[in-house]
Amino acid sequence: MHTPNPKSKKNTVVRLPERGHYDRETIYQIVDEALIGHVGFVIDGQPMVIPTLIARDGDNLLLHGSSASRMMRHIATGEPVCITVTHTDALVLARSAFHHSVNYRSAMLFGKGDKIEDLEEKMRLTALFMERLIPQRWDDSRIPNEKELKATMIVRIAIEQASAKIRNAGVKDDQEDLDLPYWAGILPLQTVYGPPIKDEALPDHIPVPDYVLSYGR
Amino acid sequence: MHTPNPKSKKNTVVRLPERGHYDRETIYQIVDEALIGHVGFVIDGQPMVIPTLIARDGDNLLLHGSSASRMMRHIATGEPVCITVTHTDALVLARSAFHHSVNYRSAMLFGKGDKIEDLEEKMRLTALFMERLIPQRWDDSRIPNEKELKATMIVRIAIEQASAKIRNAGVKDDQEDLDLPYWAGILPLQTVYGPPIKDEALPDHIPVPDYVLSYGR
Repeated sequence: MHTPNPKSKKNTVVRLPERGHYDRETIYQIVDEALIGHVGFVIDGQPMVIPTLIARDGDNLLLHGSSASRMMRHIATGEPVCITVTHTDALVLARSAFHHSVNYRSAMLFGKGDKIEDLEEKMRLTALFMERLIPQRWDDSRIPNEKELKATMIVRIAIEQASAKIRNAGVKDDQEDLDLPYWAGILPLQTVYGPPIKDEALPDHIPVPDYVLSYGR
Repeated sequence: MHTPNPKSKKNTVVRLPERGHYDRETIYQIVDEALIGHVGFVIDGQPMVIPTLIARDGDNLLLHGSSASRMMRHIATGEPVCITVTHTDALVLARSAFHHSVNYRSAMLFGKGDKIEDLEEKMRLTALFMERLIPQRWDDSRIPNEKELKATMIVRIAIEQASAKIRNAGVKDDQEDLDLPYWAGILPLQTVYGPPIKDEALPDHIPVPDYVLSYGR
């Protein structure tokens, strides 16, 4: 964030304020672990939410997409956007239906988009985008030509305000429910990657790279 | 959807229209597989996107939360919302940086919220909500008392319009790139559940239920 992240009505966690976090480290860790974010914007008063790949560059968030994309063109106008990233970590099963919950980490980022026009800068940010999504892949693929670069829109969103919300805890049942005969505990969730499936047209002598075999976030 | 799902400017997939789907079966399958959706709404022109548990009830989407939640109270006013659900299925690694992609399934739902006030109906919908998230759990937990029911807000959103977007394909490189010496293929992603971790206060004689051990979506 370009200024110290101010707490305002917009980014303050209202419900269960003990779950709110406002420090860069916590927020950016949640963002960096994610492949995609959900981008919210408003067209004629109508909210729209679209999933897209994201990559953080310091206090900016990069989005990329086709130059013909409605979302990209709208964001490029500089209208306010909200980008939310969520990791669901566990289902929490309490003895009471009421205290069932979810362990999760989410980050909400607020800012405005700025379209990158300079081709050299676009190339630099495209490389950075790839590096964030699949480390080492940029150097192991054909980089974009000018036509491809022009067909891609890159938007940089300066993160003006942000907050994170985290639940990372066990079961919280009421004292008087502890003797009920129901199982209670948490059921963790995890994203796993692989095994990779090679393209049919790929010659057999090209091995799966280590950065693909060991991929994780 | 209460009327045949009309294609309009709002829900029409503009980019890569071959990825767009408008039939209930395709859209609802994506919704039903999800635990959470990202809810977009507008406050004073500012888009907000918040993750929350979702459950479908026919052509309605149910949300629940604290009666004190800013999001719930806003949605209950009947302002337009957009709820988006996304499954990321694979990273697609092409030989060219430009043709890298993601296999995914997403659904965008548009509608307006309606707060459920009747306590009997709230109980019925709370049971349905639980059944959608963790089948068989409702009958194996303490159901809410009146105080808990009153502390929970249930909002029903009639799905007025919707669309799905799906990419489920392999690598699409340009013909002239096929001989490049780079690995190409897809790296699947998957959500896995478990193993369950019991609450410390739980007596040892209560076994983990089968519906927890075999949980999946």
